[in-house]
Amino acid sequence: MRGEIVDTNAAWLAAELSAVGFRVTRKLCVDDDHERIQAALAALGAEHDLFVCTGGLGPTTDDITAECVARFLEVPLERDAPSLARIRERIVRAGRSPTASNDKQADFPRGARVLPNERGTAPGFAVEVGRARAFFLPGVPTEMEAMFSNHVVPALAGLPHDPAAQVVLRTFGLPESGVNDLLAGIETRFRVTLGYRARFPEVDVKVFARRDDGASAERAARKAADAAREALGSAVFAEGDVGYPEALGRLLVERGVTLGLAESCTGGLLAELLTRAPGSSRFFLGSLVTYANEAKQAVLQVPPALLERYGAVSEEVARSMAEGARRVLRADYALAVTGIAGPGGGSDDKPVGLVHYALAGEMTTARQRIFSGTRIQVRRRAAYAALALLREHLLGEPPA
Amino acid sequence: MRGEIVDTNAAWLAAELSAVGFRVTRKLCVDDDHERIQAALAALGAEHDLFVCTGGLGPTTDDITAECVARFLEVPLERDAPSLARIRERIVRAGRSPTASNDKQADFPRGARVLPNERGTAPGFAVEVGRARAFFLPGVPTEMEAMFSNHVVPALAGLPHDPAAQVVLRTFGLPESGVNDLLAGIETRFRVTLGYRARFPEVDVKVFARRDDGASAERAARKAADAAREALGSAVFAEGDVGYPEALGRLLVERGVTLGLAESCTGGLLAELLTRAPGSSRFFLGSLVTYANEAKQAVLQVPPALLERYGAVSEEVARSMAEGARRVLRADYALAVTGIAGPGGGSDDKPVGLVHYALAGEMTTARQRIFSGTRIQVRRRAAYAALALLREHLLGEPPA
Repeated sequence: MRGEIVDTNAAWLAAELSAVGFRVTRKLCVDDDHERIQAALAALGAEHDLFVCTGGLGPTTDDITAECVARFLEVPLERDAPSLARIRERIVRAGRSPTASNDKQADFPRGARVLPNERGTAPGFAVEVGRARAFFLPGVPTEMEAMFSNHVVPALAGLPHDPAAQVVLRTFGLPESGVNDLLAGIETRFRVTLGYRARFPEVDVKVFARRDDGASAERAARKAADAAREALGSAVFAEGDVGYPEALGRLLVERGVTLGLAESCTGGLLAELLTRAPGSSRFFLGSLVTYANEAKQAVLQVPPALLERYGAVSEEVARSMAEGARRVLRADYALAVTGIAGPGGGSDDKPVGLVHYALAGEMTTARQRIFSGTRIQVRRRAAYAALALLREHLLGEPPA
Repeated sequence: MRGEIVDTNAAWLAAELSAVGFRVTRKLCVDDDHERIQAALAALGAEHDLFVCTGGLGPTTDDITAECVARFLEVPLERDAPSLARIRERIVRAGRSPTASNDKQADFPRGARVLPNERGTAPGFAVEVGRARAFFLPGVPTEMEAMFSNHVVPALAGLPHDPAAQVVLRTFGLPESGVNDLLAGIETRFRVTLGYRARFPEVDVKVFARRDDGASAERAARKAADAAREALGSAVFAEGDVGYPEALGRLLVERGVTLGLAESCTGGLLAELLTRAPGSSRFFLGSLVTYANEAKQAVLQVPPALLERYGAVSEEVARSMAEGARRVLRADYALAVTGIAGPGGGSDDKPVGLVHYALAGEMTTARQRIFSGTRIQVRRRAAYAALALLREHLLGEPPA
């Protein structure tokens, strides 16, 4: 409530509940105040079939959820012996001594069903609040997520919900508004809803369908997703849980070719993106991050005359860096990026955001772009532009 | 509401409102439904002095905030001519043609005060709702944040709030619970509240004080922050808006020394962390990311016999990598990291999470650790451990 914490639990729960067919209509967050928590319980129980509450189950004095629920339901708190034993055992195993505040985590409103926590100390519980089935889970995301999947989802059978299905399209090369424009009409034509998620500079499109049965929902989502793919063309690089760098890595592995990098303004980001997913050693040999001009000469064998004549941010140097990395790392392909990420360092000739990048294979290709945005954004855009140049070369497609 | 978007606006607004002395007691998010939006307005206006609403001001049919507010207040929507002109001009300047749905963004409830949007198309507005002063801003974070600072904060004078002050301590080397344990008693002793924010693997501590006047609040926050610093020792590396890698970069610049890197399992992450902040070229020469063993030999001159005898993940190779990077990049210091980030690739001898790292200066120092967590976490922990080794050497302190 003072803004230290961004609430990722609410979005996670909304996505999971939507995926199993519930319509989420409200997210609410209140401070650690007895009266306001009880008012929230009253409102949620009056207006919803189901709610899930996270947090406030810890050992400290500001963890008051169970107490507030008990007061609201006008039942006493009761200590659950099996939970108490598990909590104490867990704390002893971690080499600490259980205290009275830990014991408090075994207190639940009379009549509650206790939900065990496999990943942490605080158990959760389930009760009826008004007309709603209500679940109370700890706030720690990993604990909450496991408990939701293991104990909440199985308990939802019988509650009113619509079968739903979704397909996630991963795109790169268009701004969110551009993706949105190309998909105009899809929602009404296929009776689906589209959700967008920007993972800069990628944009995910979630195609979401509700129908009377699961198979119809699957078919509807698939059909709409196919139409969306056609509308978006080569901007769609994958479906599901795979990012642009990882998709490119898979393509390199399929082709059985290796990649090396020479980085200046991206400062290691390009290598970091390509090595995030496991298995990158199957195609990735290394990156020569040469920030200083002397390093470009010593490591990449960029001729001093080239640096002197054209400057480090130039097509000539980008080409020489790519060719140098390919040679030194003995790679099939090498990408090089040199530019001015800002905020300082720009000139009339070479403004902030100017990036030269090159791909060296049997031939060398170079490109230049002027990217807008913050330093962090220019670096990310530059890294993705270089990856796109390689993808385009491998697929023989024009860049998205 | 389907979980595509994590609500960062709410946390941002809560932090800003807390910083100017308001007590935030509720965050609420409802779906695009006339009835539920009007019910939310009724509840917020009945129970609060102030609320800020974001989103739903765009051009599309599901952007219904202004319409819902007008209906709730029982006033008509009226088109604002100056806003209309600005919206159309902005769209034409972007090379597009204004449409009827764009024009709709100039419609406001009669009597509303229009809040201009300097960074985007959709203006905001302010009205009274029940007993609350209510502000409606667009959902795009950069637009919303500028409008809040420029138009909302100046309008808050006169509303009941307590002067507040805060100090943010930046820490590394302790888990969040460890930081929390060391600060036990600070809140009651100094009448402040502590907030924690994990930026893995860093932990921020926000020391927050409310008093009757601003100067007393400043003094109270400062005094408590000093006590917290003492309790946390060398885990505190800075105050305010500076990360651990950037703080280390500043230290290197102060000392007038240069740094080079040799990376294996961190795959460029260490370089990326150090070059994120502008000005890194004043100390950072480059990073030789050598994923393949052949690259370690060709680029870092690691002897093949060493790789054969001890393996790439070994103290001997870490030392040789650091010394190689220092020599090749002609750096005053070089850090090297080699390890098994996982999830695969581990063995009984060398489990997943094992990382060897080394610092080469006039002498070479090596360390090893076994880190837990996901691949991403092992990489981050390894990068930070290497940075900590250099920091410790420069400051002559034991590692936090």
